[in-house]
Amino acid sequence: MPEPFVHTFRVRYHECDAQGIVFNANWFTYFDVTLTEWFRALFGSYGALVERGSDVVLAETSARFRGSGRFDDEISIAVGVESLGRTSMVVAYTASRDGETLVDGRTVYVFVDPATMGKQAVPDWARERLEAYVTG
Amino acid sequence: MPEPFVHTFRVRYHECDAQGIVFNANWFTYFDVTLTEWFRALFGSYGALVERGSDVVLAETSARFRGSGRFDDEISIAVGVESLGRTSMVVAYTASRDGETLVDGRTVYVFVDPATMGKQAVPDWARERLEAYVTG
Amino acid sequence: MPEPFVHTFRVRYHECDAQGIVFNANWFTYFDVTLTEWFRALFGSYGALVERGSDVVLAETSARFRGSGRFDDEISIAVGVESLGRTSMVVAYTASRDGETLVDGRTVYVFVDPATMGKQAVPDWARERLEAYVTG
Amino acid sequence: MPEPFVHTFRVRYHECDAQGIVFNANWFTYFDVTLTEWFRALFGSYGALVERGSDVVLAETSARFRGSGRFDDEISIAVGVESLGRTSMVVAYTASRDGETLVDGRTVYVFVDPATMGKQAVPDWARERLEAYVTG
Repeated sequence: MPEPFVHTFRVRYHECDAQGIVFNANWFTYFDVTLTEWFRALFGSYGALVERGSDVVLAETSARFRGSGRFDDEISIAVGVESLGRTSMVVAYTASRDGETLVDGRTVYVFVDPATMGKQAVPDWARERLEAYVTG
Repeated sequence: MPEPFVHTFRVRYHECDAQGIVFNANWFTYFDVTLTEWFRALFGSYGALVERGSDVVLAETSARFRGSGRFDDEISIAVGVESLGRTSMVVAYTASRDGETLVDGRTVYVFVDPATMGKQAVPDWARERLEAYVTG
Repeated sequence: MPEPFVHTFRVRYHECDAQGIVFNANWFTYFDVTLTEWFRALFGSYGALVERGSDVVLAETSARFRGSGRFDDEISIAVGVESLGRTSMVVAYTASRDGETLVDGRTVYVFVDPATMGKQAVPDWARERLEAYVTG
Repeated sequence: MPEPFVHTFRVRYHECDAQGIVFNANWFTYFDVTLTEWFRALFGSYGALVERGSDVVLAETSARFRGSGRFDDEISIAVGVESLGRTSMVVAYTASRDGETLVDGRTVYVFVDPATMGKQAVPDWARERLEAYVTG
């Protein structure tokens, strides 16, 4: 099994709701922030990917909630590629605090040409780097 | 088929991202707002449900993105019950603009006792009202 | 004194923080939403203003907090023009619940040409409509 | 002049609006995050302050916008105490990117007893640490 990419951050005060726990939608924001940091490690930055002629569009996303995050918690999100298709990939996220899994997530991304926003085969240079994270 | 409950609202400026479209996580916020309005119609308010001794906790959620929402768009979200179990229910959402479906979503809610946060059988008085929306 | 424009809405669950009250930054979001609705009444829509060749850029903003908003509260924000200059205006907001003032706010907007983003004198057709709200 | 406390972070994708720049209200969120990190340096954590019997409530806040933040920008916010009164303090924030000031802000905090939420004189142990940041 390859090593996942891990992004660690703190829960911000306003990300918690009146129950004192991270509001569900904010976990999807955390997945997005984690993708940005992963793409920084893979491609230099998200912007660099786009400049090289590729962008990703979110087609589906889901999350299963097993525990709650609270203000100032240090959360780690591990990210891996569940499957890498011709024009799309399934990315899996596991969010944890002190080794306890809080949320599992999954997003389906489609590769597009940033100029036309039309579907695109995953470019070879991107595929090569993404393959190191395929867990399937 | 029962009539779904429909909540209509406008996309706010800050809910769009740098691509000019509704940021993906905000659709889950919209689902939550729609649930609040649906519970107002069903139970008087979300608070009234809790005061009567029942709360719901989100266990799973997902969305499929087919189109994009933009600033000031008038969005309608139709909500129905896909299945109503002993202690949980699956709620389905369809978000559209001028009849065009933009996003499909689904959330699994577990009923809990607000005092203990332990699982609870759906109370009869709540089940009766929810049954009017079961589509399965 | 002219009648202010008033926008009424409900506090959403995720807009409250772990203290159970509206997170301070969200009041500025509410001011922005109120501006959008006021511009709808004045100009057809915010987009219509831009299409006619004018946009506004936020230069300064402030708020004084006197009370707290809570989940599901019905909040009304009254908006008036404190002063209308050659290229800018000061807009004042008063947010209340059941007649109790919760937050006072003020924003300074500069008119710009949307094509160049350079400063612009307030166009006569816009000035005419805005003058009906000048309270100073 | 004392050294300010500086917190550095990246602009997240969803914090930008349809103009591609940080939405104005999010700067107040950044101020709040910076306060949390500053309190971590001063008191161990925000929670530790509250546990020791003191909390702060926001009474007023303001910002002047001189430039724009964009996605993935590395922003630094310097924080200092403009004045430290008997029961309140004025905190000043300067947000910059590569040495260019983007936003100036100021918040007035009132010290309260977390149990009663009533006003409180700034405790000596807190005053001592805060005094190192007084710039006035």
